[in-house]
Amino acid sequence: MALINENYLKLKAGYLFPEIGRRVSKFAEANPGKKIIRMGIGDVTRPLTPAILKAFHEGVEEMGSPSTFKGYGPEQGYEFLRKAIAENAYQAFGVDISADDLIVSDGSKCDTGNIQEIFGSGNKIAICDPVYPVYADTTVMAGKTGECRENGYYEGIIYMPCTEENGFIPALPAERPDLIFLCFPNNPTGTVAGKKELEKWVTYAREQKSVILFDAAYEAFIRDADIPHSIYEIEGAKEVAIEFRSFSKTAGFTGTRCAFTVIPEELKAYDREGNAHSVRKLWMRRHTTKFNGVSYPVQKAAAAVYSEQGQKEVKELIGYYMENARLMRENLAQAGYTVYGGENAPYIWVKTRNNMKSWAFFDWLLNEVNVVGTPGSGFGPAGEGYFRFSAFADRSDVLEAMDRIKRLGKM
Amino acid sequence: MALINENYLKLKAGYLFPEIGRRVSKFAEANPGKKIIRMGIGDVTRPLTPAILKAFHEGVEEMGSPSTFKGYGPEQGYEFLRKAIAENAYQAFGVDISADDLIVSDGSKCDTGNIQEIFGSGNKIAICDPVYPVYADTTVMAGKTGECRENGYYEGIIYMPCTEENGFIPALPAERPDLIFLCFPNNPTGTVAGKKELEKWVTYAREQKSVILFDAAYEAFIRDADIPHSIYEIEGAKEVAIEFRSFSKTAGFTGTRCAFTVIPEELKAYDREGNAHSVRKLWMRRHTTKFNGVSYPVQKAAAAVYSEQGQKEVKELIGYYMENARLMRENLAQAGYTVYGGENAPYIWVKTRNNMKSWAFFDWLLNEVNVVGTPGSGFGPAGEGYFRFSAFADRSDVLEAMDRIKRLGKM
Repeated sequence: MALINENYLKLKAGYLFPEIGRRVSKFAEANPGKKIIRMGIGDVTRPLTPAILKAFHEGVEEMGSPSTFKGYGPEQGYEFLRKAIAENAYQAFGVDISADDLIVSDGSKCDTGNIQEIFGSGNKIAICDPVYPVYADTTVMAGKTGECRENGYYEGIIYMPCTEENGFIPALPAERPDLIFLCFPNNPTGTVAGKKELEKWVTYAREQKSVILFDAAYEAFIRDADIPHSIYEIEGAKEVAIEFRSFSKTAGFTGTRCAFTVIPEELKAYDREGNAHSVRKLWMRRHTTKFNGVSYPVQKAAAAVYSEQGQKEVKELIGYYMENARLMRENLAQAGYTVYGGENAPYIWVKTRNNMKSWAFFDWLLNEVNVVGTPGSGFGPAGEGYFRFSAFADRSDVLEAMDRIKRLGKM
Repeated sequence: MALINENYLKLKAGYLFPEIGRRVSKFAEANPGKKIIRMGIGDVTRPLTPAILKAFHEGVEEMGSPSTFKGYGPEQGYEFLRKAIAENAYQAFGVDISADDLIVSDGSKCDTGNIQEIFGSGNKIAICDPVYPVYADTTVMAGKTGECRENGYYEGIIYMPCTEENGFIPALPAERPDLIFLCFPNNPTGTVAGKKELEKWVTYAREQKSVILFDAAYEAFIRDADIPHSIYEIEGAKEVAIEFRSFSKTAGFTGTRCAFTVIPEELKAYDREGNAHSVRKLWMRRHTTKFNGVSYPVQKAAAAVYSEQGQKEVKELIGYYMENARLMRENLAQAGYTVYGGENAPYIWVKTRNNMKSWAFFDWLLNEVNVVGTPGSGFGPAGEGYFRFSAFADRSDVLEAMDRIKRLGKM
């Protein structure tokens, strides 16, 4: 008799974003005349830029000719792309990461979700609260937790609350974790971690031989010069950290699909007898066995992000979204909201009005002004009472949404 | 302390194809003047056809304009593609599969590798021997086996030998499995299963509530009119079978990346108390949590496979490879080899000469005539003494390789 993975039954509800989609669809069907402004899912809205588009077309064209056709490529990505990333995203900033340290994939959601497969079931996982839900959901699916408690916490996960009181920066946990998910600039709070903060984590991880799973999907949005873009800017991080990066938000690739994971050779994890093993070798074994590489034309498009013209274009693209973020911060504050984030990240994290619950605030905003955001509680229990607005929207929609919210006034 | 998944340490060696790549690279470096003919990895060599290329370009172009840009799509694939598949690959042949039964992904390697995640660790897995190595490797990674025995079998896997004696068609196993991997047309033996054969498996699976994982990646190569293309041609199969299909071999997508998995609503698996659960719901939960959809232009290209012109082109494409297969069968037989497969599949399965071991035969062919094939033992212990030639090659290379092998004569 075929048995299911019963860990899936522990999952509380549908994944956050499909649930938002369902509520919005239902509202749209019932209210066909209303213009809904979507600032919910953190999905880019601006098209691929010309230099990237050109390379994408060239890649497609190569697939149509016998002499340039590409079949299976290296599962870890073509060297031309890995070299471009290493040189432009790391070495140009004095960070010693080479093409061999990089494994290209079709998304950071996949990578952060799959990474636990190479680690043993006995590991304790630490996760910020609130944070991108994939870390907790995939920990549950992997059977590394017990049931979900009434407070919304899964038994067995070490939660690190990120609250107004601690500036949304987690403290070192009381219980020692083996794997630590960190996400800076943070999704959803928009918080960034300074050098000292990251040094604290690297030191902690080195002391106890734990591994930091560092999600840097939003690094391109950092504006302050003294905020690290990579965990490898911290000395010793190569021994304890995996870094996840993506072209999704950096270059508008959410529908195009390309990302990469950095695993330095120095990074080790251990068997039960204490012998050290190369983490990269394990991940490469998974990657070559369960993945078949990213579409070749997509890799061509991704490499074009690092051309001179490509860099100019994606900087403009990010500038566009960050101007949205500035406008949203300003207007939401004017509307009387307490506003966080949005300065080095594309997310604005606001407190709901009158201590409304996050989903109630979601439904209220959707019904009253037809604006969609993301309920803070969807990112973890400590997100309750908060709401995330995404700066990934068209300028006119941002201005209209802010106008509607301001006119709505206080409840 | 971060612990590794020690199941990875049980894996015998590198994944088969990277190992072939390493040996070939080493030979090429040492013998720079020699022309190596590669018929090892089952990788297509013909370019994307015009109708598909046109749609691919159109999809890319849409990504460059604000009004047609696509961000995140549905994780399970756009409806336009799922409808095109359901109508053209199933309903047109009288098989009742709908767009809702389909989940689009970036590859069957990923799907067949990841599918076990939604099933419990207590399941017994049955695998043909020899077969595509991903099934066994991912079973080991998932911790569902013991160590690898001296005979090459992992403890805990139910192996179903496919030998010359049983016509490379497995018998029902003595021990009852919960999950049964079947692959027809078979990789590597090129064997197909007739209707009666598949009925036997469906009846068996229904009796014991097990699930058949049916890999139909090569269905497009079936020539005989009476061989089923889909397991759902068998009555009752919707209750017990998942079917995997891919555009990789059908339409030359190995470097473009698109595939799909069929999970009918009727398919159930069970918790330990015997309650039935929807398998599709579980897979959708995994897919939406750990995957973010296939690149939009790739989905456009895949849908074009089902256009009238696309169908004409891919039929020609498959005809080209199958003519290769015919030539290979003929020439290898003339060279004195015992030849199987190649009539309804792109793989030719030959017995090595003088009972040579598969890897010895690999090295011998590479050294003597610079032709690369795949050692049969790489697909499982019962593949020892066999060798797989792939018909995915250019015609001139096929003819030259056959000529070289014929001139080599008997050992």
